[in-house]
Amino acid sequence: MGRRKYAIGVDFGTESGRALLVDVSSGQALATAIYKYSHGVIDEALPVDGKPVRLEPDWALQDPQDYIRVFKRTIPAVLRASGVDPADVIGVGVDFTACTMLPTLADGTPLCDLPEYRRHPHAWVKLWKHHAAQPEADKINATAAKLGAGWLTRYGGKISSEWFFSKTLQILDEAPEIYAAAGRLLEATDWVVWQLTGEEKRNACTAGYKALWSKREGYPADAYFAALDPRLEHVVSEKMSRAIYAIGQRAGGLTAQAARWTGLRPGTAVAIANVDAHVSVPAATVTEPGRMVAVMGTSTCHMVLGTTEQLVPGICGYVEDGILPGLFGYEAGQSGVGDIFAWFVDHAVPPEYHRAAKAAGRDLHQHLEAEAAKLKPGESGLLALDWWNGNRSVLVDVDLSGLLVGATLATRAPEIYRALIEATAFGTRAIVEAFDSHGVPVNEIVTCGGLPEKNQLLMQIYADVTGRELKIAASQQTPALGAAMFGALAAGAAAGGFDTIYAAAQKMARLKPKTFKPNPAAQRVYNDLYADYLVLHDYFGRGPNDVMKRLKHQRAAIRA
Amino acid sequence: MGRRKYAIGVDFGTESGRALLVDVSSGQALATAIYKYSHGVIDEALPVDGKPVRLEPDWALQDPQDYIRVFKRTIPAVLRASGVDPADVIGVGVDFTACTMLPTLADGTPLCDLPEYRRHPHAWVKLWKHHAAQPEADKINATAAKLGAGWLTRYGGKISSEWFFSKTLQILDEAPEIYAAAGRLLEATDWVVWQLTGEEKRNACTAGYKALWSKREGYPADAYFAALDPRLEHVVSEKMSRAIYAIGQRAGGLTAQAARWTGLRPGTAVAIANVDAHVSVPAATVTEPGRMVAVMGTSTCHMVLGTTEQLVPGICGYVEDGILPGLFGYEAGQSGVGDIFAWFVDHAVPPEYHRAAKAAGRDLHQHLEAEAAKLKPGESGLLALDWWNGNRSVLVDVDLSGLLVGATLATRAPEIYRALIEATAFGTRAIVEAFDSHGVPVNEIVTCGGLPEKNQLLMQIYADVTGRELKIAASQQTPALGAAMFGALAAGAAAGGFDTIYAAAQKMARLKPKTFKPNPAAQRVYNDLYADYLVLHDYFGRGPNDVMKRLKHQRAAIRA
Repeated sequence: MGRRKYAIGVDFGTESGRALLVDVSSGQALATAIYKYSHGVIDEALPVDGKPVRLEPDWALQDPQDYIRVFKRTIPAVLRASGVDPADVIGVGVDFTACTMLPTLADGTPLCDLPEYRRHPHAWVKLWKHHAAQPEADKINATAAKLGAGWLTRYGGKISSEWFFSKTLQILDEAPEIYAAAGRLLEATDWVVWQLTGEEKRNACTAGYKALWSKREGYPADAYFAALDPRLEHVVSEKMSRAIYAIGQRAGGLTAQAARWTGLRPGTAVAIANVDAHVSVPAATVTEPGRMVAVMGTSTCHMVLGTTEQLVPGICGYVEDGILPGLFGYEAGQSGVGDIFAWFVDHAVPPEYHRAAKAAGRDLHQHLEAEAAKLKPGESGLLALDWWNGNRSVLVDVDLSGLLVGATLATRAPEIYRALIEATAFGTRAIVEAFDSHGVPVNEIVTCGGLPEKNQLLMQIYADVTGRELKIAASQQTPALGAAMFGALAAGAAAGGFDTIYAAAQKMARLKPKTFKPNPAAQRVYNDLYADYLVLHDYFGRGPNDVMKRLKHQRAAIRA
Repeated sequence: MGRRKYAIGVDFGTESGRALLVDVSSGQALATAIYKYSHGVIDEALPVDGKPVRLEPDWALQDPQDYIRVFKRTIPAVLRASGVDPADVIGVGVDFTACTMLPTLADGTPLCDLPEYRRHPHAWVKLWKHHAAQPEADKINATAAKLGAGWLTRYGGKISSEWFFSKTLQILDEAPEIYAAAGRLLEATDWVVWQLTGEEKRNACTAGYKALWSKREGYPADAYFAALDPRLEHVVSEKMSRAIYAIGQRAGGLTAQAARWTGLRPGTAVAIANVDAHVSVPAATVTEPGRMVAVMGTSTCHMVLGTTEQLVPGICGYVEDGILPGLFGYEAGQSGVGDIFAWFVDHAVPPEYHRAAKAAGRDLHQHLEAEAAKLKPGESGLLALDWWNGNRSVLVDVDLSGLLVGATLATRAPEIYRALIEATAFGTRAIVEAFDSHGVPVNEIVTCGGLPEKNQLLMQIYADVTGRELKIAASQQTPALGAAMFGALAAGAAAGGFDTIYAAAQKMARLKPKTFKPNPAAQRVYNDLYADYLVLHDYFGRGPNDVMKRLKHQRAAIRA
């Protein structure tokens, strides 16, 4: 047996980046380090000297140099902390939020790093949650519908303001000079891999899920882009690339410069870039169809693998090679989950529960969970629609809103808390059943993210509501572990890594021993409640009563 | 001009009784005194010595001797405080909660005052909010429906568990020996008048609104009572009376004993008994059709006078002579109003607002009102159904529950507070429009009770939502003032009082100068919101979606 080999995964989040150094033979984490972006999320004013450059509402930018600093700070730190010899680190993988994109020169230099563009907001990185491109998204959807674009059906009939061409079109609309100056427009995840390897190689995951690409049809036709705006006609060939690399491939080796930044050896294998949610799938042991991965945090992302192409109404999209090579990766989502519980805890819980939680020495979530766990299914007398932040799947409608029915003078906070958990479970069941009834089976659910660790009641309710066994990924750093797995895959078996992601998953990914199985008695009650949820879901979400849209538009009109 | 004359109104509430001494020439209050019932609301155990006698859930009893103590304590107190000569007090009136009823011997002795029955719960006064007779109410409704009883239409198609025969039938079902021992079954308001005058004279208000009597048809037929239970066949002739006295008549004069209790002169005129809500109508200056009186507190009671008999779907009932002599008195209600705001303030407002209210030196209601007043109509983005405590009118369904739609992650407590106020205003509009479209016009609304004084925002929202001008009765003790007015009416003009309630109202009742007029711009927004309210009202309240009932029954089944 030779020396142990290691891989590093680098996970770029919203506020910080993290490196995780793992043993490729076991997936065991030896060290982790975090760098908090010095400029964080830029949503008020650009971090520039002189006269302030203020941003409009809904903007969210980042500084690409913060990403380079993640490499410079965290990789040396994990090497130091673990004592691992850089020669034994065989591969590096990255994952990122998406769509997080930026304009650069043809050589990859970010436009915001050039003095002439530094004071221009459109020259900076647009973070995933930059929400100022809704008019452009509307135009993209309307134009696609008008032209009968077939690709629209892959995305549930509607694309989001967060996606690549919404942001691109906003640059063109509002800053044509930046658009003209941009030799390249690309995802930040591809950009950081380019900075490590010196090669621009774009990944299939973001191309497929965020930029309308598919393996069989490529990008939308130039004529479609021309219909959006004549100046956009050649955007793909001029500023992007038609060469798209499957997830699981090797992007290249570390450049001498990147080796100096990180303390790793030049030539160390680097994987094709990846996305935080999708990279978690093999890290949650899932490399085959039939097992859904749910990344549960403020929102939830659901991913399932399939061997065949299926149209599932209302999901976010599906991409061949987009999660694992050789398979179709299906994605759906709930736009508010942990966010809804946090809203409730922050804005609707009276002081007595704050005091009781403090006296019991637990946080308010834990306290409400303990109180809510005393209730039986159906005992709250409440039913909610989980749309506080709109509905991503299967209704694909940001204008929907939250609903609570059944309140009486006897209703108390733990009952509402439980009803909100149940509502998000019903929302998950709607997604599970959409997949299951359209040729993408879901037999069990493997969870990761912040919520499953924190809330046992939630896990049991999800099992009871969906009728599926729920499992939890063992790693608390699932995305970084996944990135490291792809680093080991990029290195290959000959270098001590792996030739297939299946082999990597078998060695490196594990589940926690505790699982949550459906309780038949609870399932029966929740089947009845789910039937009522579905009736309200369709009544308020599919057209019979559009009151949610009217309320939202009225509010927006008054505030404008 | 002779000596000034005075009248005393005695208002029997849920927790206490109050006397008000007023000048009959102006309605000016000279003194008031309160006696808090020594046994209050008896809802856990009987106030007896020895082994405790516990009550079942939903029971609410009172001690009739507490009512006598009200006379003994408060009337001497107002005489002392005002310095008025008892010879100048020309009349006394009472008003009471209803249906609040008790079993007595034929001579009026309460059964609970007899040693052999003192430890029997059914021997005590059943307070209006005794809610343990629902099975009996269900039987009364089902039997009436089966027999096609015409009187059911006078009560919106359904009678309540709070009403007279529900309580009577519960006594028969659960304690036949008490039913057999009861020489009389009667409303407490009639009983206290009997104690003052020595004469059992029953009033048309409680007979009509609570005991199925009407001036034209009398009580339901004996055959109907026999169908409920053979032992009940002759309940009216054996234990009640077919002699019913119109509101506004003289019941008799004070007995020597009652004169000793009160310090008033024997023979002082006493009015036929009355009910707290109904007695407020003339005290709010309303003696003619077209002007609704809304008594707004924890719940709201709406009363309108009419010259003709009209069937208004979903109202609580109408009684000829029941509010004012010679007119039809129409009554409707909202079962939760101030109660809903109190629920919200107690159970759904986070600590920051509690702190801010304290810092601003106002109570939380005032603070939320001030914050909610900063919002424009429609700005909350929320819409609610005001059914936290069921719906009394116009749906007559206690199994309905509260609904809130439109919540987002940006929703804050003052927005919900405002939405709840608006919801109760929409509920009032539904009642106003039911009257208005069925031959009982409502041109303006005169309010009294606790809420109108406290919440200016609420008053303006009600004006904007209903499109009616809102006024406020000047007296803060409207029921006691109304009772005193009827005392002056019982005395008659020859004794220095009045011969008609119109004359009494002209002298004794006043409105506050400030009124609330509809704002046309707000009315437009609320017309749209009301249209949406009505759609939800009918969808959840009239059968298309019975989810509220399913949720409530499920909860009750689990709790049982």
